[in-house]
Amino acid sequence: MSGSTFGNLFKITTWGESHGKALGAVIDGCPAGLSLCEEDIQPYLDRRKPGQTSISTPRKEADQVEILSGVFEGKTTGTPISLIIRNTSQKSSDYSEIASYYRPGHADYTFDAKYGFRDYRGGGRSSGRETAGRVAAGAVAAKILKEMGITVTAYTKSIGPVEINMSEFDRNSIYTTATCMPDKTADERAAAYLKECMMNKDSAGGVVECIVEGLPAGVGDPVFEKLDANLAKALMSIGAVKAVEIGDGVQVSKAAGSENNDPFVCENNVLSKKSNHAGGILGGISDGAPVVIRAHIKPTPSIFQTQETVNRDMENINIQIKGRHDPVIVPRAVVVVESMTALAVLDACMQNMTARLEYLTGFYKNSKN
Amino acid sequence: MSGSTFGNLFKITTWGESHGKALGAVIDGCPAGLSLCEEDIQPYLDRRKPGQTSISTPRKEADQVEILSGVFEGKTTGTPISLIIRNTSQKSSDYSEIASYYRPGHADYTFDAKYGFRDYRGGGRSSGRETAGRVAAGAVAAKILKEMGITVTAYTKSIGPVEINMSEFDRNSIYTTATCMPDKTADERAAAYLKECMMNKDSAGGVVECIVEGLPAGVGDPVFEKLDANLAKALMSIGAVKAVEIGDGVQVSKAAGSENNDPFVCENNVLSKKSNHAGGILGGISDGAPVVIRAHIKPTPSIFQTQETVNRDMENINIQIKGRHDPVIVPRAVVVVESMTALAVLDACMQNMTARLEYLTGFYKNSKN
Amino acid sequence: MSGSTFGNLFKITTWGESHGKALGAVIDGCPAGLSLCEEDIQPYLDRRKPGQTSISTPRKEADQVEILSGVFEGKTTGTPISLIIRNTSQKSSDYSEIASYYRPGHADYTFDAKYGFRDYRGGGRSSGRETAGRVAAGAVAAKILKEMGITVTAYTKSIGPVEINMSEFDRNSIYTTATCMPDKTADERAAAYLKECMMNKDSAGGVVECIVEGLPAGVGDPVFEKLDANLAKALMSIGAVKAVEIGDGVQVSKAAGSENNDPFVCENNVLSKKSNHAGGILGGISDGAPVVIRAHIKPTPSIFQTQETVNRDMENINIQIKGRHDPVIVPRAVVVVESMTALAVLDACMQNMTARLEYLTGFYKNSKN
Amino acid sequence: MSGSTFGNLFKITTWGESHGKALGAVIDGCPAGLSLCEEDIQPYLDRRKPGQTSISTPRKEADQVEILSGVFEGKTTGTPISLIIRNTSQKSSDYSEIASYYRPGHADYTFDAKYGFRDYRGGGRSSGRETAGRVAAGAVAAKILKEMGITVTAYTKSIGPVEINMSEFDRNSIYTTATCMPDKTADERAAAYLKECMMNKDSAGGVVECIVEGLPAGVGDPVFEKLDANLAKALMSIGAVKAVEIGDGVQVSKAAGSENNDPFVCENNVLSKKSNHAGGILGGISDGAPVVIRAHIKPTPSIFQTQETVNRDMENINIQIKGRHDPVIVPRAVVVVESMTALAVLDACMQNMTARLEYLTGFYKNSKN
Repeated sequence: MSGSTFGNLFKITTWGESHGKALGAVIDGCPAGLSLCEEDIQPYLDRRKPGQTSISTPRKEADQVEILSGVFEGKTTGTPISLIIRNTSQKSSDYSEIASYYRPGHADYTFDAKYGFRDYRGGGRSSGRETAGRVAAGAVAAKILKEMGITVTAYTKSIGPVEINMSEFDRNSIYTTATCMPDKTADERAAAYLKECMMNKDSAGGVVECIVEGLPAGVGDPVFEKLDANLAKALMSIGAVKAVEIGDGVQVSKAAGSENNDPFVCENNVLSKKSNHAGGILGGISDGAPVVIRAHIKPTPSIFQTQETVNRDMENINIQIKGRHDPVIVPRAVVVVESMTALAVLDACMQNMTARLEYLTGFYKNSKN
Repeated sequence: MSGSTFGNLFKITTWGESHGKALGAVIDGCPAGLSLCEEDIQPYLDRRKPGQTSISTPRKEADQVEILSGVFEGKTTGTPISLIIRNTSQKSSDYSEIASYYRPGHADYTFDAKYGFRDYRGGGRSSGRETAGRVAAGAVAAKILKEMGITVTAYTKSIGPVEINMSEFDRNSIYTTATCMPDKTADERAAAYLKECMMNKDSAGGVVECIVEGLPAGVGDPVFEKLDANLAKALMSIGAVKAVEIGDGVQVSKAAGSENNDPFVCENNVLSKKSNHAGGILGGISDGAPVVIRAHIKPTPSIFQTQETVNRDMENINIQIKGRHDPVIVPRAVVVVESMTALAVLDACMQNMTARLEYLTGFYKNSKN
Repeated sequence: MSGSTFGNLFKITTWGESHGKALGAVIDGCPAGLSLCEEDIQPYLDRRKPGQTSISTPRKEADQVEILSGVFEGKTTGTPISLIIRNTSQKSSDYSEIASYYRPGHADYTFDAKYGFRDYRGGGRSSGRETAGRVAAGAVAAKILKEMGITVTAYTKSIGPVEINMSEFDRNSIYTTATCMPDKTADERAAAYLKECMMNKDSAGGVVECIVEGLPAGVGDPVFEKLDANLAKALMSIGAVKAVEIGDGVQVSKAAGSENNDPFVCENNVLSKKSNHAGGILGGISDGAPVVIRAHIKPTPSIFQTQETVNRDMENINIQIKGRHDPVIVPRAVVVVESMTALAVLDACMQNMTARLEYLTGFYKNSKN
Repeated sequence: MSGSTFGNLFKITTWGESHGKALGAVIDGCPAGLSLCEEDIQPYLDRRKPGQTSISTPRKEADQVEILSGVFEGKTTGTPISLIIRNTSQKSSDYSEIASYYRPGHADYTFDAKYGFRDYRGGGRSSGRETAGRVAAGAVAAKILKEMGITVTAYTKSIGPVEINMSEFDRNSIYTTATCMPDKTADERAAAYLKECMMNKDSAGGVVECIVEGLPAGVGDPVFEKLDANLAKALMSIGAVKAVEIGDGVQVSKAAGSENNDPFVCENNVLSKKSNHAGGILGGISDGAPVVIRAHIKPTPSIFQTQETVNRDMENINIQIKGRHDPVIVPRAVVVVESMTALAVLDACMQNMTARLEYLTGFYKNSKN
């Protein structure tokens, strides 16, 4: 197994390396009847595309998606949707140096340990470029969720020490800043911090927060397939993510029960919660409040300082990484977090449709009329 | 789906409610030839058993495990191992009150929203008692890992504001304290803090850290089945866990790349890392350093203060929870974290055995001689 | 993996050996709200119970099922249903002989080859007794299907050379004969044939046919998860089944297209087919006609004639099997075929509920009101 | 779910429609280190390619495969292998007629029933062309098996009434005849029979037999994941297959136990069986003898005779199918059967590598040295 499939009913399989011919995703289990064309997917890919701002790698990739199957006369047919993104900017560089040693903070060594060798060109399958397939598939999941009345919104919550704290924010302004922080002042401070990092030949990490709205109560399964468990897997599977929080997250370990419990309240026969420390999930099942999750992203491991490491001949050496690297990957990870969240939530929604006998009898009695 | 199965090759399915007849687990895919008897499993269950200290619920459960299948002449046969734990202390209480409303911080409302009704006796399937099956299965996984030279050790890192910070600790002293903190002073401070909580009719959360040692480099899969992704799912699937960290965890979002990268170093032809900010995992694959993960556990939602909530008739009411409840569940969660980690690591180890063609050809050439 | 889990959304895991303490099944994913008690399941187990007629082994087993979890106040809760059947008639026989050699037609040798040793008491996990768990779970699936208007009916179509050929039959008479042939004359001829077999210290095989009625068109998935593919797997997974047919089955290889095609016809705006050579499945998806499948079951391998074989010391020996053995297992397999069919069909029905976008939007729009 | 993924450890996902832009397969879990290039795969695709003989459709497709990922410097890397086959011969025909009605024996109606509409061009996803992806992936599985000393060989056993019966045959001559019958005389008789079919505007079915040699005893799992159960699913998932047999298959239902049992025998300390009625599988696990399976394939449903059917307006009509259609699909199905068998066998072999504790301890102790 190489673990490139995600989901049970809405199942995606991604493939492709940073410097191979192409990358892609196959979506199996997409419901029939969804209007879908490349223009629905392209904006998501554009959001993670490199070379757009001063804080992302100057590598230029069109990242143009093509739908190869599963859509007929503008609608999904229910059969697999194959999405392909051609690589166009793989330079025929000299990779002999990078092939010879193990970059700290990268997967060079672990791929060699597992497989005996690796595609060392640009990180191969362990490159951040791998996420293009996730994002293409996530765009489709997000479109379906929108038709169901569910929205998924991610944004940059912090970069290094610069953090925005907001309960309400203008989601239209997320993509107006290079950092994807929907707060001009914070964006400027983060940009200044990143400039400093680059001058120090260093890099920065940050936090992406994602909010799911419109999800009714009852989605997710008890025990191992809890909605938060699958969200945690979805987000932790993104390279560079080292922690995942739901709701109050790490703060709960210091909170008192009386602070952390969300009182239920009922108005006009509609149940809600007075607060949302739980982040919209109780016992692994959505409670009707917005689902709030955060991914902590490590600083880009490719830095331009001299670093100690080991080469394939097991010699201790000093290296100096060259090439094109983002000083921070957080802004480009925003759409990846959003995509993985959409995939996990949609799959849970689909699985939930058989939770009660009355759903089955209702469905099959209708199908006979 | 109710999501009670975990793992791909070493697969467990748990079942049972807090106040039903019994709880249990079926292990499917346990390798044949492991010496196994109840005495291998019982110590794990004893570690999560209630009624043992002043800081855990006085409910008395023997939690005696019985092996019903899959073991013959003292060895596992390779076929399913069915484990059962009879409930003995379900009081025939009057549950009409608890049945009528939704406790804040509990899954009462979400189960109703999903399934239309719920087994309200003691939380039913959403009770912490559900973890008995995980622990029984985890004991078997841990025993196999030990035979492979891999150990899994969890302990209480913090309770409320009381935290121990240690790189090296005496693992034999973990279970000498009621808090499972291998540090007498911290244990005493935590006990004092909990006493205060109880006086305030309140509860506390905390952090469990788990360390996997002896795991060779190369285990785990790229992309969605990353070792850390599966560990995150495993831990987040434990009720009350609201955040999961790998290695430096949430700190990475504030760190610089030059701090966060772990330099490789080679001594006597053995590669290792000078530091372990990554927590033993790079690109989703183990790097040979100890795997370090942390679960943040929320304060027990059952507190004795008056709380606002809603009943099934959608009326706003005040409630006062009665009964037997731990002021903190962290100490009892330690063995659950250890068990889930063991299950996730063993499954990854098994899947890794087909990563290279030479493994297959070696295996099948031997099998023909 | 030992492969004891079946199904994706309605998932069962069985466990237990012929002469262990108990056998059982865990159903994960049973929809909430189904009325269920032991009396719903027991009749299915009674149908496969040994010791009931002159043509089945005299071993007496009560095969009493007990529900351990997942049912509350007489209704399924949506959480795992654990079913247990205690073994009561395991004689403390001397198994040293049977342990020492490989019975022809049995799995003794292959279990040893795979696992290094085996539970040799009564065939262990490879015993026909393993099917008790399937049948207990199948009873639940069949009950759900009935609520959906779908019935599953199996019967003995042939034993040895004695075959009944019928398009319409009285399903109430299936269990009135010892052979489960709903045809008195055939039953008598089959009984006579079996008597002859027993006199010759030999055994017989036969065919079980199963018919699914009320299944609407559209159930099953294209490509690998075809309804017939899953039915084939379900039936071939029953020990002793060596061939599976859908509709005309093996006859299609000799038929002409003009004979084999089923013309569609429409009456009163209802589409149907003039014939049903396809057995109710086209392209892996149900077509609205009854689903017709057949399992070919080999003669009981335990015969009382002297047989050549090899012992564990790799010596050629002659053996004479003793003990309690059915001369034919076909009648007892009828309910097993019915159960496996019910499980496969129900799972396909559940998965089908997300086939169209309109199903999702309809479901989630309703859930918000 | 649309069910386009097959396998657990060696997992393939296929995609594409008859008249879409392309078809393909993604292989996830291919072990690293296998030499692989397009030339390894192309011969398999060439064997199922149309337009090669007088008995196959004149549609010309180059069916040229391209590897898009997962191979580096001529070797598989362990990450997903994406295979693509561009469609080149989709004529821009007028499909309005075929779109308007339901062809008997085809999946037109069932796709509409399931999804609400369908890609009607050339059968869309239900076209036999869908198997191109299976065959491309199967070629990779077969290459790996060969390295492990296991071969998979399929051939045409019968077409209509013309059957060859042989225990030993020259496997090199399978592809020397248009029918894939390794028997010149039978091939000629079959060709004559097909000519007659075509003159009658009719079509024929047949049987493909597949033999797996070199598979050691012990592969496959008890209960639901029996090797024969997975083979049955694999073969029944091929469109047009209506029955699957293992070993003696349907004949077992008429055989006596004394005929059907295969005596074990030992020579030079090597255990084998005197006969192979079981087809190489006992209790779902390989027994060391060749695995023998057969798929019964229905006559091509597209015949040129006038047929009764129903159109989308629910009117009874007569239709006359036009276009390019094979009078028999059996010869082109041979390599599909071979591919699906290879996929199922390889997956079982990989899963078997964790059957014993000693395998795990041996593997992980070695990995630490």
